[in-house]
Amino acid sequence: MNPVRRTLLGALGYGGALLAQPALAAAGRNPQAAASRPAETWQTGSAERPLQLANLLELEEAAAKVIPAAGFDYIAGGAEDEWTLRENRAAFGRKQVAQRVLTGKVVTDTATTILGSRIAMPVIIAPMGGHGIAHVSAEAGTARGAAAAGTLHTVSTVATLSLEEAAQAADGPRWFQIYLTNDDGFNAELLQRARAAGYNAIVFTVDVPVGGNRDRDRRNGFVYPAAAAPRNFLDASGRPRAIDRGFKSRLDADSIDFVKRHSGLPVVVKGVAAPDDARLALDAGAAGIQVSNHGGRQLDGTPAAFSVLPAIADAVQGRVPLIFDSGVRRGTDVFKALASGADVVALGRPVLYGLALGGWQGVQSVLQQIERELRTVMQLAGAATVDDIRRTGLIG
Amino acid sequence: MNPVRRTLLGALGYGGALLAQPALAAAGRNPQAAASRPAETWQTGSAERPLQLANLLELEEAAAKVIPAAGFDYIAGGAEDEWTLRENRAAFGRKQVAQRVLTGKVVTDTATTILGSRIAMPVIIAPMGGHGIAHVSAEAGTARGAAAAGTLHTVSTVATLSLEEAAQAADGPRWFQIYLTNDDGFNAELLQRARAAGYNAIVFTVDVPVGGNRDRDRRNGFVYPAAAAPRNFLDASGRPRAIDRGFKSRLDADSIDFVKRHSGLPVVVKGVAAPDDARLALDAGAAGIQVSNHGGRQLDGTPAAFSVLPAIADAVQGRVPLIFDSGVRRGTDVFKALASGADVVALGRPVLYGLALGGWQGVQSVLQQIERELRTVMQLAGAATVDDIRRTGLIG
Amino acid sequence: MNPVRRTLLGALGYGGALLAQPALAAAGRNPQAAASRPAETWQTGSAERPLQLANLLELEEAAAKVIPAAGFDYIAGGAEDEWTLRENRAAFGRKQVAQRVLTGKVVTDTATTILGSRIAMPVIIAPMGGHGIAHVSAEAGTARGAAAAGTLHTVSTVATLSLEEAAQAADGPRWFQIYLTNDDGFNAELLQRARAAGYNAIVFTVDVPVGGNRDRDRRNGFVYPAAAAPRNFLDASGRPRAIDRGFKSRLDADSIDFVKRHSGLPVVVKGVAAPDDARLALDAGAAGIQVSNHGGRQLDGTPAAFSVLPAIADAVQGRVPLIFDSGVRRGTDVFKALASGADVVALGRPVLYGLALGGWQGVQSVLQQIERELRTVMQLAGAATVDDIRRTGLIG
Amino acid sequence: MNPVRRTLLGALGYGGALLAQPALAAAGRNPQAAASRPAETWQTGSAERPLQLANLLELEEAAAKVIPAAGFDYIAGGAEDEWTLRENRAAFGRKQVAQRVLTGKVVTDTATTILGSRIAMPVIIAPMGGHGIAHVSAEAGTARGAAAAGTLHTVSTVATLSLEEAAQAADGPRWFQIYLTNDDGFNAELLQRARAAGYNAIVFTVDVPVGGNRDRDRRNGFVYPAAAAPRNFLDASGRPRAIDRGFKSRLDADSIDFVKRHSGLPVVVKGVAAPDDARLALDAGAAGIQVSNHGGRQLDGTPAAFSVLPAIADAVQGRVPLIFDSGVRRGTDVFKALASGADVVALGRPVLYGLALGGWQGVQSVLQQIERELRTVMQLAGAATVDDIRRTGLIG
Repeated sequence: MNPVRRTLLGALGYGGALLAQPALAAAGRNPQAAASRPAETWQTGSAERPLQLANLLELEEAAAKVIPAAGFDYIAGGAEDEWTLRENRAAFGRKQVAQRVLTGKVVTDTATTILGSRIAMPVIIAPMGGHGIAHVSAEAGTARGAAAAGTLHTVSTVATLSLEEAAQAADGPRWFQIYLTNDDGFNAELLQRARAAGYNAIVFTVDVPVGGNRDRDRRNGFVYPAAAAPRNFLDASGRPRAIDRGFKSRLDADSIDFVKRHSGLPVVVKGVAAPDDARLALDAGAAGIQVSNHGGRQLDGTPAAFSVLPAIADAVQGRVPLIFDSGVRRGTDVFKALASGADVVALGRPVLYGLALGGWQGVQSVLQQIERELRTVMQLAGAATVDDIRRTGLIG
Repeated sequence: MNPVRRTLLGALGYGGALLAQPALAAAGRNPQAAASRPAETWQTGSAERPLQLANLLELEEAAAKVIPAAGFDYIAGGAEDEWTLRENRAAFGRKQVAQRVLTGKVVTDTATTILGSRIAMPVIIAPMGGHGIAHVSAEAGTARGAAAAGTLHTVSTVATLSLEEAAQAADGPRWFQIYLTNDDGFNAELLQRARAAGYNAIVFTVDVPVGGNRDRDRRNGFVYPAAAAPRNFLDASGRPRAIDRGFKSRLDADSIDFVKRHSGLPVVVKGVAAPDDARLALDAGAAGIQVSNHGGRQLDGTPAAFSVLPAIADAVQGRVPLIFDSGVRRGTDVFKALASGADVVALGRPVLYGLALGGWQGVQSVLQQIERELRTVMQLAGAATVDDIRRTGLIG
Repeated sequence: MNPVRRTLLGALGYGGALLAQPALAAAGRNPQAAASRPAETWQTGSAERPLQLANLLELEEAAAKVIPAAGFDYIAGGAEDEWTLRENRAAFGRKQVAQRVLTGKVVTDTATTILGSRIAMPVIIAPMGGHGIAHVSAEAGTARGAAAAGTLHTVSTVATLSLEEAAQAADGPRWFQIYLTNDDGFNAELLQRARAAGYNAIVFTVDVPVGGNRDRDRRNGFVYPAAAAPRNFLDASGRPRAIDRGFKSRLDADSIDFVKRHSGLPVVVKGVAAPDDARLALDAGAAGIQVSNHGGRQLDGTPAAFSVLPAIADAVQGRVPLIFDSGVRRGTDVFKALASGADVVALGRPVLYGLALGGWQGVQSVLQQIERELRTVMQLAGAATVDDIRRTGLIG
Repeated sequence: MNPVRRTLLGALGYGGALLAQPALAAAGRNPQAAASRPAETWQTGSAERPLQLANLLELEEAAAKVIPAAGFDYIAGGAEDEWTLRENRAAFGRKQVAQRVLTGKVVTDTATTILGSRIAMPVIIAPMGGHGIAHVSAEAGTARGAAAAGTLHTVSTVATLSLEEAAQAADGPRWFQIYLTNDDGFNAELLQRARAAGYNAIVFTVDVPVGGNRDRDRRNGFVYPAAAAPRNFLDASGRPRAIDRGFKSRLDADSIDFVKRHSGLPVVVKGVAAPDDARLALDAGAAGIQVSNHGGRQLDGTPAAFSVLPAIADAVQGRVPLIFDSGVRRGTDVFKALASGADVVALGRPVLYGLALGGWQGVQSVLQQIERELRTVMQLAGAATVDDIRRTGLIG
């Protein structure tokens, strides 16, 4: 496969999937597989209901029953052997929280502020492509659920809805995530549209210079179904625009500067998993850093995001806020990330599962559940506020 | 769910269960589940027999067959992913006992003294709510079994029987465990009743300022069956008393002082799992400290109780006795806890399993089995007495 | 159960089994179990054939098919949770052997000398009770197989055959293992008989001051079948002699002296698993030390024998030979034990499996297989002789 | 079994297999097994097609369906408990690659040079015997696949095809691997033939002084089928030549000198897994060192090849190139080996699986897949070239 093509694959669907266009599908590595799952059979969920959850982990099994199999694999899967996907969870288990119950502290609230936006809990929604894979309401449902829970959603470049549609779905703070394509005119246009649509910050994803090796997607010959096609890349009549949609492989300080200049918004650099990259981002003017390994979807065999967080927090020294993602499923995980230097965490897959199972109400349920868990661990660890969490040391 | 309600849930049934009152059940998170298990179908065991045991671990599987499923889950389960529940056991495996067989020592006896009470073995029974879930004799059976084995039982605030009923069941030393509710009049009344009923010490549990996240109980929509309803909260006619049964979230030195003052008894502070909490308890006048993480039922992801024991023993420096619970199943565990600084250990779930399977005789069998195992490890480790155990170093 | 009785249980069958005498069986903890397996149904193997082995580990599964279930459990099982039983194997995996293939060395032979006896390989047979459980030839088969392979067998106090019968079965060096009972007259008699029967050394087992907690045996209500009853305890007419067969709990320097004095033979103290016990044994005049935790059958939760070997070798400083047992199954294990300070290793359970499957020829096959494996590892590790092994450092 | 015979077994089929000659088969350890799989039932694959691969690991399961069972076990298996076989993979998991995405680097190419030969990727094919077991094209298919992917193949002494036949199969660089037999005339002849046939280097395997204990092969009574018989040992009429085919056990500096002298080619010493052996090889004039434990097929319980690589790289100090094999399955593994001091890696079993499933096109697919994975990890780790990889530090 030629490099341009590979980067394009990376661009759409985070490195393994491609638009369900006949021409592209025909050129796919596994044409039979693609052919056997024609776009019209895609049964996207449309339920709207609050969820009775015991925890966010059990959502995955439930979601697997309502999201078509290839779409579920695309969402749930990671790169290659999924070592990093699993390690993102396992790393939390190697740090423990001390039980502190005689401090006289009582949990007051879990609110915090990130880049000037007040949110009800230190948990936001991470950017993810194609919410239309999970639910007919797509990013509109996610945005509404986030707002209902009092927090913010990061809309992806490869969202099913256009950034304007997603912006109109709910009030409150919102962020826009960008992948730089090889078409700088298009890039600039997207950033200006984001500012015009009222987004409060840009999340610039830098860890997809190439698509990750997603074995599940290769086996499935996964392509984005028509129902989830990213409208930012379509013209008014729904046809692909004549742009080079391949993603840029060369990313550096100039790229960050480009995003700042064309958006005029604070830029969070997402996909930082090494102190040296954090320093590069800071020097280039990042307003925030999102520690992430893309949920284990890119470089399999890289350490857990939680494992690299302390060294990055050390490098950043509080000069800009740290957002943390990759592996968060429990209130305890939120607690541990904040106690390790993060200011807020971003939640990914469970939000899509909640969306698939209950639309915006499902998203709200997911966020409320993790907040409920967080409150419990705070009380049992003697932390009354989010700031108290940040002052708590972990064990191990 | 509002905070008051949550604390109430925590109070009754250690954080997940609630009284089987129509009004409360109807407000439960999983009304369908609750509705499908009406209280009248609860089949509590009534067998009275000694048990043929190979060990205490195999009891769990046997007990699962006689205790109704939701009740078994309530007893056996832990918080969230049950990491701490498992870790409580696993931590024992990381320390080893040296085989010492040429010292010329022969085990004499396993008796010891705790807070002035002489007991036949360094093993007592930990406080647990609602023994009526397991057996018709409830705490009376447990108390009788403890006395038959020569040791003592700690009666819970949320025992099925009233503290007076439990006290009358058997002679010998007995302790009363208290949760502070938000009703200080009721709290004071309970403590005075305990003293009047001849309890020798108060075990003040401080690690339930909020109910733990018990996923099993959430899934089951578990509520205490009528047969196990805690009578300390009922009036003479069996109706709930008009008190605020929510548990206090704010616990500190003043709370300990309150318990001392109103009981006039030695106070063991239970739920200490950090050296700083141990120091707070000592400074507030605790007569004993019970190192515990509530059997992994509260803060999932906190270290094993056995892992934090040495640091707490260091902090306490022998000024008050240390009781240890959470994870003890084998004579070797008792040995390791004592060799790590504990004065006695408290045994929990296996006692309820023994009660369910054999009533008071089952409880006695459980205690005799662990004593038998303890004697064997003592002999093979060259320890003739409980004091010898305390002088033995562990490996690892 | 009274202490005397417990020690008796320990004495016959290493702590869990007892002679199949009506009076004793009736008093057993699990009479039903015992009753359901009457002694006359015991089907002991009688095959005589060499074995086609890929390795000694696979023998266990094969042996489980020919040895009656309770007897197999008795042989294969360990104490309590069998942690030490498994750890005895696992510990070998934490040390590695370097591949050395350019040294120009070629394996010459594997012969060595132990307490004056020349043997063809640094592997002898550990003492084990009741070989009649496994095969009609009992210890005669084992002794003949050992001699055929050029090494020696240690006959147990609780062997099925009398020590004289076992001695007559084959030429070559032989050792006698003793447990001290509470009857010193009988002890002295046994030791004198051993000397008279031509045994070259006494192996004095000190790690059964009490029977281990063998959960399998408790569940099975295991008793030695009549076919395997230890004849050293019977009179000429096959009836139990009127002696106190309980084993001594108090073992110390005086005990070692007793064994030396009454046997007039070199005494190997077996069951040493701590440097302090090694020093006690040396000071009391031991001629050899057998590092062992009784194959994980006594103190569950004690470290692997292989883990404690280096510290004991350090304490002994080569003053007497070290025999090592507990967990050896592969030539690599033999190599690692010798490289860690052992002079020879003693092989246990696999020998009984070989006996069960092929009589004396099976025993020979087992010994030849482990020698073949040892030769391979020696060649690949650059060790031409047993002395070369001792000079080889391990990795890890 | 006598030593000569054992070494012969080692020689043919790397230590467990032997030629399917009636005389030899009849003397096999498991004649029944051998008899039940007569050579004529061997169904060697003949498919010629590119493979749709998600990764190289899944090839094993697919190959198990097309290669006769005993042949598959021979290829896939390792020595004894296969601890080292598994550890060869596990060791990679203990080092991690940092995600570096802001360096501005873009992968250019993966080409490199080894002993003067330019290859398209830092991956070559390791020597393996009897490719005829896997596919009718045997080494001709492998050589053609290697050439198509732009890299080189190492032809084994015990290749199915003669070294001349293998050489004629494809253009491009090629290496010949030698085992020294006990017949020095034959050894010298082979080396001279290799030079005459245009081989660019000799890979001298030193880690088969004796055949490894391959339990699978012992169980299967595996013998090379007639279709895969190594023609280097046959005369023109296809009959075994009258030579001593046992492999030399004594290997040292003189052996290396012999290979250099008789071939006149650069000699890579393969099977070095200890710094001291590396120093011996360097002093004897090795032109390259291949760090290998024979894919876990020789000394079970020796460390992973990847674990010993850094110490050997330290000892070699870059004086000669390092080739690394044993356990490589992923592009990430290639990256990690190069970052730990290797110059190129050699790929083994997956190549045979590719050959079995798709002939030369299957081999090409395997090589292209690992190159594709390597490119992805390079880009995500900020390495534009193979030299960049060598300058990258690993984590852990």
